[in-house]
This record gives sequence, structure tokens and C-alpha cells, in this order.
Amino acid sequence: MASKVSPLAPARFPDLPIIGGVRFASAAAGVRYKGRTDVMLAVIEEATVAGTFTRSATRSAPVRDGQSKLAHSEGGRAAFLVNSGNSNAFTGRLGEEAVHGICTAAAAALDLPPSRIFTSSTGVIGEPLPWQRIADAVPALRDALAPDGIEAAARAIMTTDTFPKGASAELDLPGGTVRIAGIAKGSGMIAPDMATMLVYVFTDARIGREELQALTSAACDRSFNRITVDSDTSTSDTLLVAATGASGVDASGQPDFARALESVFLDLALQVVRDGEGATKLVQVRVTGAASEPDAHRTAMAIANSPLVKTAIAGEDANWGRIVMAVGKSGAQADRDRLSIRFGDIVVALDGFRAPDYSEEAASAYMKRQELEIGVDLGLGDGAATVWTCDLTHGYIDINADYRS
Amino acid sequence: MASKVSPLAPARFPDLPIIGGVRFASAAAGVRYKGRTDVMLAVIEEATVAGTFTRSATRSAPVRDGQSKLAHSEGGRAAFLVNSGNSNAFTGRLGEEAVHGICTAAAAALDLPPSRIFTSSTGVIGEPLPWQRIADAVPALRDALAPDGIEAAARAIMTTDTFPKGASAELDLPGGTVRIAGIAKGSGMIAPDMATMLVYVFTDARIGREELQALTSAACDRSFNRITVDSDTSTSDTLLVAATGASGVDASGQPDFARALESVFLDLALQVVRDGEGATKLVQVRVTGAASEPDAHRTAMAIANSPLVKTAIAGEDANWGRIVMAVGKSGAQADRDRLSIRFGDIVVALDGFRAPDYSEEAASAYMKRQELEIGVDLGLGDGAATVWTCDLTHGYIDINADYRS
Repeated sequence: MASKVSPLAPARFPDLPIIGGVRFASAAAGVRYKGRTDVMLAVIEEATVAGTFTRSATRSAPVRDGQSKLAHSEGGRAAFLVNSGNSNAFTGRLGEEAVHGICTAAAAALDLPPSRIFTSSTGVIGEPLPWQRIADAVPALRDALAPDGIEAAARAIMTTDTFPKGASAELDLPGGTVRIAGIAKGSGMIAPDMATMLVYVFTDARIGREELQALTSAACDRSFNRITVDSDTSTSDTLLVAATGASGVDASGQPDFARALESVFLDLALQVVRDGEGATKLVQVRVTGAASEPDAHRTAMAIANSPLVKTAIAGEDANWGRIVMAVGKSGAQADRDRLSIRFGDIVVALDGFRAPDYSEEAASAYMKRQELEIGVDLGLGDGAATVWTCDLTHGYIDINADYRS
Repeated sequence: MASKVSPLAPARFPDLPIIGGVRFASAAAGVRYKGRTDVMLAVIEEATVAGTFTRSATRSAPVRDGQSKLAHSEGGRAAFLVNSGNSNAFTGRLGEEAVHGICTAAAAALDLPPSRIFTSSTGVIGEPLPWQRIADAVPALRDALAPDGIEAAARAIMTTDTFPKGASAELDLPGGTVRIAGIAKGSGMIAPDMATMLVYVFTDARIGREELQALTSAACDRSFNRITVDSDTSTSDTLLVAATGASGVDASGQPDFARALESVFLDLALQVVRDGEGATKLVQVRVTGAASEPDAHRTAMAIANSPLVKTAIAGEDANWGRIVMAVGKSGAQADRDRLSIRFGDIVVALDGFRAPDYSEEAASAYMKRQELEIGVDLGLGDGAATVWTCDLTHGYIDINADYRS
């Protein structure tokens, strides 16, 4: 857990705006870690809640509980209660009992129906969650709630993360200014599929539940569903968005709001990649000219998940042959003689062959950058997709060859 | 290239039987490597040839050429001419010219039609193949042909391999004894999909082309298509089988012959995994109780390809939670409460929870073995599949962060 901060980390945690109607607290409940906070509580007044979750067939008890509650979400006050250190996944009947125990305790302490308590758990899989420690922490958390506690909350939900992740947007709509602030955790087991890691986003905009859900799902598809660290999909991925309406500003039907929400999602998603386990490079993979958008996405993910591409990037090796390999294995339609590949602005391959003016020296110099762009044009159609990944380094092996121990 | 021999390597190259009608030679043509052999030639009398190839959309020029020749294979003498060091993949028009140049030279030297020359190339992608060096080596190769040159041939086709790979079978059929001998290369970029790495298998059995092809495809599906080192699929995967009939023994319709052929394939496939880049553990993943056979295969491959599972194995960590994760992400039907997991004979999870008598100590002791079995029962149906993989170690990063340079 005492990893050095990722070299790709932002200089500091951003200044996030206060979101009217939302208060935060965090505490050290001793779930698994010693000497650090591991539980965060957010209480939201008049919350319209939307969300997305992992589609893993072995998803955790809190994910299943959250999915069911979201489907029947009714408005009014709500709480998000999140612990790190233990994911409460694959814990059988004890998993449901733990969620029930936490929600019952929180409902009593916060004077809320249990159906308005959304819990998440992240950490080791398969260990019974010592939920009583979390339940016991709720009264103190309640007493500590404050509008400016979001950075501490972001720290409390970290696991192998090396820095807390936050992002925000402020925008002027016809009715006035609205604010969006979000936090996330995630570093390994990152290949969200129709879902994400743990992400909590708050806004003081006024917006209906169905519209907020639609905006959330669409923005998630273009942000969290476009990142990968290691192709492994978590059992606990959860994204929750709460709108309080405290600004009094109606965001319904406002494209600027949709764009701002997506920008916050994307900012957080890229911070997750920047904190990819062992990462030293942030890599954008842009595929164009695919026969379809799904083909573009499939090709981009095949590149972004390829261990051989990712180790070449770690070694600062302009090994574009491995990109050819990944394109070939992706299952997407491809034609060698129409394929072109670039690193940044350097065209390395064109029409099925090394580019005529290819310079190994220039490509190698480019690979020394900390942020890289790989561009692939399949030359077949209009399908395009962008995904983000990181390199695969000794640091990843160090972290994961004994994370649990 | 000067890697230490894999700790999982067999003690020595096996004694392979002489296959009547097949002669081998190898040479140092200087394609890319210095001070070692890098070209092998096999000339087969009265060859019935079958094969399978990568389905990569960016497959190499020799693969495309071999596919087309196999489709029109007519019997009679044939030759396999293989180089290491350069894969002649993504080399555009020059790739086809190189294959044409090599085949023309070999056809002249061996007095064969070019349609009976099957070439393969393995090594770096995207560099023009210096094919004239190979063409120039053919006369000397021809003059050196000998029935016992198969081990030297196995060495000549190695790239990042740390040991040459051979396997054989001998079996008594009603008409007499037949022999099968095969060689393979492969270490990284190993996730054959309906194909394999470079593999050449020879038998003195007499058998028709269609039947040999059917046996080859079926055996390949149960051997090479069940291994993975790094989930990356080569542009050059090629498996060729040649039957000479020199034994005079008819193997048509003999299940024992089919089984023997498959046993040679599986032996070679497991040697490829044993030589997986950086591998220190050989891991068998056996999935049972799946809703279907494809679901079982998908689940087994999700486990076998998961970086988090493979790094846990490298760290000798009995981290079965990551197996739950991989089952969940596979896309196959799964039900947490019916899932059970074992390491060898140690049941670690049962019916959606840690096994009641789970002993971390026993599981950890098991993980220290060099050869491991992971068993997963999905509890849903009769679908079953077995695949083989290796661990993901610092060695893999070392090898691949600067293979090309």
C-alpha cells in the first residue's frame, strides 16, 4: 500500500466546488488497513440518483443491492456509504447480511429508509466483511458531516491508488450557474465493461431521474468504458451520480450540462489510468477508418490491452509491429494494405508497409514522452473510437505478485 | 536472445524416431541473428500435407501463401522452408515478393514446383525480409539433407524460445508400426486462435489428405488452441503436418492414430507454455459444469489470460478472489452461489463462499509448486474445457520491454 505516487499523477488534488445539499465525512474504521481512513459517508439532500454498475457475473453484494435500489429510486434524501480494504465480493450469504447490517445501522443513525442508502465496498475479494466496524462508525461519521469533506472522502476510498482523484466543472445555464464535483478510486483490475470503478459525482443542478440516468450512461460509455489498465474487470465497479437541485437551476435538455458531466467523468477516468498499477506512460489509442464504431472500439481495446504493446511502451520501443499484431487479433475487419499507424504525428506505417520516410530515430525519441498517442487508421469506413491505457511495467508485477499478502 | 533456459524446460530434447521419407537440414543464413542457425529445410517424399494457420487479419505473407497452397495441395514431394529472425509480416508488396523469391529458388534447387514449397517466417514484424540470403542458402541446405536433422531444425526456428521443442509417438496399427515426430517454436505472442505457432509434424503413416486435415484441425483445437502465454495472437502461426506413407501402414479410420497425433500436438503445445516468456509456473486451468463447452472454454481462457491471476501465481499467492473476478468478466453464464474453485485437490471456494475448511496455509504451500492445477466448477451444466497457461513475471517484462532493440 505504501507505493510511491504515480509519475503520471496530477500535481495536487484539484479545488472542488462546494455542491449545495451534499456533505461528506470520513473515518478510520479499521476494516483492513491500519493508520488511515477507510470509510466515507456522503449525505445528499433531495437527491436524484443515477448510476451504472459492473456487469460481472460475480459482482459483489453491494453492487447487487445498489442495482436493485437504483431501479426503485424515489428521490428525497440519500446517503452513499463506502469502505475500502474489503470488497464484500464472493462472500455468499454473509455478503448480503453485511449490506443489510450496514444499511440498517446507517438508516437508524441518519433517519433514512434503508432503500436510500447506497453502499460500496472495494478491496480484497472473498473475505467476510467485518461490517460491524463500519456500522459502529456511522454515528461519528454523521456528526462529522461537512460540505467541504470531499477530498478526505476521496482519500478514504483508495486501495492500491497512489493519489486521490477528483474533478469538477462549473457552467452557466440560462437559469444560473451549476456545479459538478466528483471523486473516484481505481488503479488495478481496470477494464470496465458498461460500468466503472468506484466513482461518485455530485451536482447542484436540477434534473429528472430518467434524464440524469440517460446522461450518466452515455457519458460513462465515452469515458470509463474507454479505459483499461490490465483488461481485468472488477466485481465492484460502481458509478453513482447525485443531483441535489440546490442551485435552483434546471439542467434538463441542456447539452452544455451533458458535456460538462462527461468532461468530469473523462477527467476522473484518465486519473484512474494515470494511477494504473505500475504505470509510467499515459497512452491514448485512437482508431479511425473502421468498418463500424464497434470495430473501432474492439481494435482500440485489443491494442490497449495487448501485453506486448504495453511492454514495448514501457521499454520506450517504437515497436509498431506489435500494433499490427493487435489489430490482426482483434476480430475487427482489417486489410493489411489499407492500414496506417502513427505515433503522435509521426507516420510509421502506411498502406500495409513501413512508411517511406520512417525514421526509427524520430519514433524512438517520441516514445520517451510520458504521454503518448497511438493512431491507427483502418482505411475501411467511418468507425472511430478513442481509448486510454498505460504501460505494463515491473511495477505492475511488484504490486500484484503480493497485493493480498 | 541470450535468455537462461526456462525452469520449466524438459531435461533434454527427446529422442525422436526417424520418419521414413523425411530429411532435414539447417543453416546460418544471417537473416537477423549472428552466430546461430536460422533456416531449416525439410524435404518430404510423397507428402500428404495438412495444416492450420492463424486467423489474424494481419497475417503474414508466408501464411497467406501457405493457405492458398494447402487448398490446392496435390501430393508428391514437398518441402518446408522456415526462417527465424524476421516474420515477413506487414511488409506489403515486398512480403509477397520475398515469398515468391524464396519459393522460386527452392523450386529450382530441389526440382519441385513452387506450389509444393511451404515457407514460414518468424521474428520481428514490419522489416523487409532479406530473402536473398535464404534463397542463397538453399543449395547448401539441399546438399546437407539428412534423416536425423530434426533436432538441429528445431533449434534453427527458435526466436525468444529458450529450448528447442520436439515430441513423438509410435503406435502399432493393424498393418504395422507408424511413427510421428514433430517440432515447434513459440514463447511469446502466444494465444493461438484456431491456429498455432510454428509447428511441423511428420509421420510415416499412409493417410488421405482430407482425413489428415480433419484430424489435424480437431487435434489442434484440443491442444494449440488451448494454450496462452500472453493473450497476444501471432501474425505467423502455422502448423503443417506431412504424412509420407513410408511405413506402408494405412492409418485411415484408426482412432489410435488420431489419439497419437493429438498427443504429439499437446506435448508440443505444453512445451510452448513451458517456454512462455518469463514463465516459472505451468498452470492447467480446468473448467467444468459450464452451461456449454464454449462457455467453459471462454471461462478457462479468461482465467488463463488474466494479468491479475497470472501475477498472483507468480507471487505464489493463493488469491482465489482473482479467479472469481475472471469468471465474472468472461462473459460466460455464471452463478456466484454455484461456483466452486480448487487449487489441485484443495477446495478453496464452494457454493459462492470460501470453503468451510479452507486453509490458507495449505493453499499457500500448494502454490509453491512448479506445476499447478486450477479447477473451477460452474455448477450449471456439462460444459468442460482445459487450457494451459504460465505465470506473468518480471522476466516477461524484461524480455518484451526491449525485444526488438
